[in-house]
Amino acid sequence: MATQPEISDDCTDLVHDLARDARSAQRVLARMSDAEKADALRAAAAALRAEAPKILEENRKDIAAGESNGLSSAMLDRLKLDEDRLEGIASAVESVAGLADPVGQVIDQSTAPTGLKLQRIRIPIGVIGIIYESRPNVTADAASLCVRSGNATILRGGSEAVHSNRAIHAAMVKGLSSKGVPEAAVQLMPTQDRAAVGAMLKASGLIDMIVPRGGKGLVARVQNDARVPVLAHLDGINHTYIHDKADLDMARAIALNAKMRRTGVCGAMETLLIDAKFPAGEKVVAALLDAGCEVRGDSRARSLDKRIGMAGANDWDTEYLEAVVSVAIVDGMEAALEHIARHSSGHTDAIVTADDDAAERFLTEVDSAIVMRNASSQFADGGEFGLGAEIGIATGRIHARGPVALEGLTTYKWQVRGEGQTRP
Amino acid sequence: MATQPEISDDCTDLVHDLARDARSAQRVLARMSDAEKADALRAAAAALRAEAPKILEENRKDIAAGESNGLSSAMLDRLKLDEDRLEGIASAVESVAGLADPVGQVIDQSTAPTGLKLQRIRIPIGVIGIIYESRPNVTADAASLCVRSGNATILRGGSEAVHSNRAIHAAMVKGLSSKGVPEAAVQLMPTQDRAAVGAMLKASGLIDMIVPRGGKGLVARVQNDARVPVLAHLDGINHTYIHDKADLDMARAIALNAKMRRTGVCGAMETLLIDAKFPAGEKVVAALLDAGCEVRGDSRARSLDKRIGMAGANDWDTEYLEAVVSVAIVDGMEAALEHIARHSSGHTDAIVTADDDAAERFLTEVDSAIVMRNASSQFADGGEFGLGAEIGIATGRIHARGPVALEGLTTYKWQVRGEGQTRP
Repeated sequence: MATQPEISDDCTDLVHDLARDARSAQRVLARMSDAEKADALRAAAAALRAEAPKILEENRKDIAAGESNGLSSAMLDRLKLDEDRLEGIASAVESVAGLADPVGQVIDQSTAPTGLKLQRIRIPIGVIGIIYESRPNVTADAASLCVRSGNATILRGGSEAVHSNRAIHAAMVKGLSSKGVPEAAVQLMPTQDRAAVGAMLKASGLIDMIVPRGGKGLVARVQNDARVPVLAHLDGINHTYIHDKADLDMARAIALNAKMRRTGVCGAMETLLIDAKFPAGEKVVAALLDAGCEVRGDSRARSLDKRIGMAGANDWDTEYLEAVVSVAIVDGMEAALEHIARHSSGHTDAIVTADDDAAERFLTEVDSAIVMRNASSQFADGGEFGLGAEIGIATGRIHARGPVALEGLTTYKWQVRGEGQTRP
Repeated sequence: MATQPEISDDCTDLVHDLARDARSAQRVLARMSDAEKADALRAAAAALRAEAPKILEENRKDIAAGESNGLSSAMLDRLKLDEDRLEGIASAVESVAGLADPVGQVIDQSTAPTGLKLQRIRIPIGVIGIIYESRPNVTADAASLCVRSGNATILRGGSEAVHSNRAIHAAMVKGLSSKGVPEAAVQLMPTQDRAAVGAMLKASGLIDMIVPRGGKGLVARVQNDARVPVLAHLDGINHTYIHDKADLDMARAIALNAKMRRTGVCGAMETLLIDAKFPAGEKVVAALLDAGCEVRGDSRARSLDKRIGMAGANDWDTEYLEAVVSVAIVDGMEAALEHIARHSSGHTDAIVTADDDAAERFLTEVDSAIVMRNASSQFADGGEFGLGAEIGIATGRIHARGPVALEGLTTYKWQVRGEGQTRP
């Protein structure tokens, strides 16, 4: 990891001031009703539409700067807004407005022998820091999920999108504040000084959770430096295990879809495990090869097809995010579980099998955030899971796992109602 | 914070080896049924009883060392075991055996429009590190809660209790392993080298969560140095707000109990807020003073009784844990909420009032892990909340808050059952 810039007192003071303002604003937001928050988000969507010419003008500045700084065409494409994309951003804000508000839900309740009435109820986490890279839509997405769940947010986007982010943020705040959301409830870091990111990561007690959204380098830096809890989205080294009792057509269709539907998404399959007793491994592999996928295999897998290259030791721990897959032959369930336990990144692992017992064992013993039977790992997505939206896929082990939407942005408190009880 | 010892490669290797063994053992534990885990814990309790002479003998070594090292009598008392205390430890292990197993519970389920069947089910977190100080009962308490919830654990107790911890650990493992729990599922750090603690805190991906149990210095060090999620138990700066509509007798009884029942527990009241319109503040304060409590007030509170001393600025942020209380007069609900938002440590805050609207506003707006109406804050306890046991009270904002028992030692995964679906 590169040496980090010194965190100046100025930066620390700035971040602490932002966070304190955010905390006060969050207390106002926490008092707003479900309908008021939804209404404010609809006003934010309307403001994004009304400010479209301005936002697109500012976006052109980022594009021009990106071109002169030699950004890759893929980066420029991520950065670029047009009327359609902006409309997509505005309607995404509206769909978040339409989601059910988790705040105030009673998780469970009981009456203690003392007569005390106990309830656990969902509340916002508080102040959430979002640290992200080039896509300017994150500004609106993350802000709207936070507002919907009653959280204040401090957004820190990438330098390459600074003009777009400012324009989107300004429009959002204009709409939100017209409906009573305090301006400080959605803040955009006013400086691109990287030391301010460091100060955010260390603002324990002032910022309650950090969500990094971006490449592996960003996430790793955040995880390493943070003194604030991190909702982590790391890589997706996802396995599909073709069990010996798998149906060939199903296995082939799932493997092809899991790898090739979109190779750049975190739910894409990166390793295919074929049971040594599965009779038609060569047909599954041929389908991948024929679709233009590079296949790297262990020595047994290579005997399935001449076009298969040799997998190196690193391949089993590599998230390709392109049309490349590693393939290993495994001797039964135990070996498959062992391979997955060692190499999975804990994102999404799947089995294809017609055998119920084998399926249940796999679903029980594989420890990943998402475990699937007879389905493509590319379904790993908040929308497909019925969550309506997602702030990301969490691969950590506590708080929230898999697709994280509004519930993952909440916590709970215990409400205790007594009638004067004192403890003996 | 004192300079920390260098973490040698040896220490890091040791901790990584322990954690990898723990991970393998945890996979075995995860496959054990509810009844098998309960049975193993009963065997551990029996082994603690059978090994009592040995454990007490080892404990005498710690006591002798403590005496010659000049430990305070309070420290020696925490350290000391006798037959009654050991029987208490063994029966506590048995009660954990009797608790409901959270593992495998279905949190929620749905069917997506694609026909995919989604379930979120509770699973163990994995490998949990417990870092604690002098009380040797933590060795058995923490280990049994972890085993009950299917987690492997690495225990690192204080040097002053090293012989007692080893003897308790050996007995526990003897009992557990007689019923199929792998020995590595409950490990005691084999060295007292403090660098091993540092290596635990940095074992990201190998240890899944750290639970520090001890004084503020220990918890602060852990929070500052950890790269692993921490279930944090910090201080309890707890407020009781006597609203103007409070019943005098109830207010007096609750204030007295909240402060004086046991002054050293984290649920004890540390600050009393009296509404300026409450007509009998002097009677509540007099009850505290008459019971031998030192009272430190702001200038308005001091007018209630001549015996009240002057509170300094630090008093509002002090957890006394003794017979001292700070008292402030507040002008209504808004001022009380403001004081609590600024000074509460987020543990337990209470209101005494006969007014339902005021009570509900307080329970909604105070953001602490536990908020109470008309009850003593000393009820803040896993046993009183019906959880059967607790690994501690968490004052952080994510994952688990308030009294944390078995559920707080679990997480969830998504199980997805399909029939060959591929994503369009």
